[in-house]
Amino acid sequence: MWEEKDNQLHRAFTFKDFREAFAFMTKVALLAEKMDHHPYWTNVYNKVDIYLNTHSAGYTVTDRDKKMAATIDQLL
Amino acid sequence: MWEEKDNQLHRAFTFKDFREAFAFMTKVALLAEKMDHHPYWTNVYNKVDIYLNTHSAGYTVTDRDKKMAATIDQLL
Amino acid sequence: MWEEKDNQLHRAFTFKDFREAFAFMTKVALLAEKMDHHPYWTNVYNKVDIYLNTHSAGYTVTDRDKKMAATIDQLL
Amino acid sequence: MWEEKDNQLHRAFTFKDFREAFAFMTKVALLAEKMDHHPYWTNVYNKVDIYLNTHSAGYTVTDRDKKMAATIDQLL
Repeated sequence: MWEEKDNQLHRAFTFKDFREAFAFMTKVALLAEKMDHHPYWTNVYNKVDIYLNTHSAGYTVTDRDKKMAATIDQLL
Repeated sequence: MWEEKDNQLHRAFTFKDFREAFAFMTKVALLAEKMDHHPYWTNVYNKVDIYLNTHSAGYTVTDRDKKMAATIDQLL
Repeated sequence: MWEEKDNQLHRAFTFKDFREAFAFMTKVALLAEKMDHHPYWTNVYNKVDIYLNTHSAGYTVTDRDKKMAATIDQLL
Repeated sequence: MWEEKDNQLHRAFTFKDFREAFAFMTKVALLAEKMDHHPYWTNVYNKVDIYLNTHSAGYTVTDRDKKMAATIDQLL
C-alpha cells in the first residue's frame, strides 16, 4: 500500500521477474507521460519503488499524486 | 490460439487498451531479444498480431517458433 | 519520408538492430498515448512501418496525422 | 563517465525529456535481460542513474559490470 512519509507517497512493488517489472514500468511511463507527471522511481530485477510528489507545489504530496497512485494501482 | 498458415504461426491478441497492449509488447520484446528470435508483429490501439517463423530455416515454422509461441502465452 | 496513399500516411524506418527499433517504438508509444492517437504499425527486427489516419474522420488523413508524423520525425 | 565507489559502478545520464530517458531505459532493459544482469537504477523525468555490481560475487564490481557499462555507453 502507499505510505506518505517525508512529503512523498511511496509504494514498493514486487513482481515475478524483471520482465514483469519492466512491463509494469512501461505502463506507468505511458501514464506519467499522459498526465505530464513523472515519478521518482527505482528498480532492481523484480522490485520497483515509486515515490510521488509535486514539484510545482514545493515537492509536497497533492491531489495529483493521490490520483496517480490510485491509477497506478489499477495497472496491476 | 496460435494457427499455422502460409508457413507462419499466427496469434491475435486483444487487450483492454493501448497501455496494456504495449506493456505486453514490451514483454515480448524482452523475450525476443533474449532468444535472439524476433517476430513480425502489428499493433493498433488494443490489438496485437504476432507472426512467427524462422528466417534461417527458409522462413518456415520450426521448434524455435513453437517454443516462442508457448513462452508468449505464458506472458499473458 | 512520409507518403500519402490509400487514405494513410506511411513511413518506413530502418534501424541498426532490434534494440534501436524498439526504443524508437517506445518513444512513439509515449507520444501516441499522450496525443490519444494510436498508429497502425508493424515491426520485424530493425524495421518499423507506421501508418497514420484518423478513425473518427472515417479513416482519412487529417491534420492530426500530419502533426503526429512531424513529431515522430523529431524523435529520430 | 562511470565511477567506481562503494563497490558499485555508477553513471548519471541526462536526456532532453522523459521520452528520451525512458527510450534509453528500454534499450538498457533489453540489454540487461539478454545479459541476464540487471542494474539498480533510478529515474526522474530526464535523469537516469545506473548502479552496477554483481550479486553472485558478493555485490562487488566484476568484469561483467565493466562489460555492461561499456555496452550501455554504446547505446547512447
